[in-house]
Amino acid sequence: MSQRTALAGFHAVTARLRNAPQTIESLYYDPSRRDARMRQLLERAQQASVRPIPVEAERLQALVGQTRHQGVVALCARLEHVHSLQQALDQIGDESLLLLLDGITDPRNLGACLRTAEAAGVAAVVLPRDRSASLSSSALKAASGAVESLPVIAVVNLARSMDEIKEAGVRIVGADHAAPSSLYELDLRGPLAWALGAEGHGLRRLTRERCDELARIPLAGQVESLNVSVAAGICLFETRRRHSETHAAAPA
Amino acid sequence: MSQRTALAGFHAVTARLRNAPQTIESLYYDPSRRDARMRQLLERAQQASVRPIPVEAERLQALVGQTRHQGVVALCARLEHVHSLQQALDQIGDESLLLLLDGITDPRNLGACLRTAEAAGVAAVVLPRDRSASLSSSALKAASGAVESLPVIAVVNLARSMDEIKEAGVRIVGADHAAPSSLYELDLRGPLAWALGAEGHGLRRLTRERCDELARIPLAGQVESLNVSVAAGICLFETRRRHSETHAAAPA
Repeated sequence: MSQRTALAGFHAVTARLRNAPQTIESLYYDPSRRDARMRQLLERAQQASVRPIPVEAERLQALVGQTRHQGVVALCARLEHVHSLQQALDQIGDESLLLLLDGITDPRNLGACLRTAEAAGVAAVVLPRDRSASLSSSALKAASGAVESLPVIAVVNLARSMDEIKEAGVRIVGADHAAPSSLYELDLRGPLAWALGAEGHGLRRLTRERCDELARIPLAGQVESLNVSVAAGICLFETRRRHSETHAAAPA
Repeated sequence: MSQRTALAGFHAVTARLRNAPQTIESLYYDPSRRDARMRQLLERAQQASVRPIPVEAERLQALVGQTRHQGVVALCARLEHVHSLQQALDQIGDESLLLLLDGITDPRNLGACLRTAEAAGVAAVVLPRDRSASLSSSALKAASGAVESLPVIAVVNLARSMDEIKEAGVRIVGADHAAPSSLYELDLRGPLAWALGAEGHGLRRLTRERCDELARIPLAGQVESLNVSVAAGICLFETRRRHSETHAAAPA
């Protein structure tokens, strides 16, 4: 893996400008785009003392392959915040949420999961190094800057990491369409890790067996499953809703 | 628009084989794929009296452009179930859900929204004809067969259609990140339409102003918005959860 990464699109580049502008080596933009979003981005770059370089759209495309760049690409040093699993577990609190992604190989789906996880305040995402999409331009674009603030921990052996997570007092709930309980019936209090599998296959057997509990999202239609990032959103935000319900109920 | 459509991938083709095999004109597959999913699909085709035609992967790709086909493509007649908005409104009940999509131009996002809507039991999706991605192969693939059973109604004037929806007694709630109330605070009883806007821009002003209420999804992280299909999943499934809560509470 290179030590440099290409961020494409407004969301991803803006997040990096906000969080770690010093890591931006070059910021390229298409000067033929003159809309408000581009103006804002160029202003933000100026505030961060990053000098944008006008280039042709073809050059931008060449930097990011098939990813849609919206006229802006930043070449950056990789951020060094990637915690170890142990570091993440050392910081676990009562309402900590983790997300385990078992074999998400589509980069856009991976990116959308990271974006969703960050928005839900997940403490870290854990995924198996060998069976996941890499954090390519396309994944980073879909992540909309989420990896700027969300630790993504690639582990060698997901099953062993699940044991460590449980030993740290975190309950693991696997999303499984064949589970007898729906997530709405489950107790979601305390530190929790949601485990989600790849579309089509779901959780691998070894992963499923290591979950403390399984839960399904009740589907009303004919499609057999949800996009994994949508499923992640429903599970994570329902958990957060319960937390706030607990807060609201606490003084009573 | 052609009268024929190309469905790509296992989800979309399986759904069509299940729901309307008679509309499949040709089913092409890559004979070098010999896994369990392909075997199941070929068995299902046989049961439906559709004869699969082995072709090379390049031929499949040529049929569907850049869409990932997973080794299977079906050329089909378009389904004729597309209701008018009035037909959909004639069937509105107390727990009916509609989804209005205001300007989703990315076909994969549109497809993922449709898949999510179908899984949540949405009665119909309404979108402006001029400002939406078309139901291309890429959108249909992401929809995973959802359009087989979900009416998708393209309207000429979304604002006017919103008036009709409200006149039919359906409350329209717009998802807006600047709304003062979160969706968890809102009363979601009765026939409801969720309105979601394009990523980056959100709902257009005219659309937002026509909503009865606005609600935000409370975000805990630094990313500024969710993918639109994830937002749709959270809003629609939260509404369904409330419905089932109402049922559970009814006998008390």
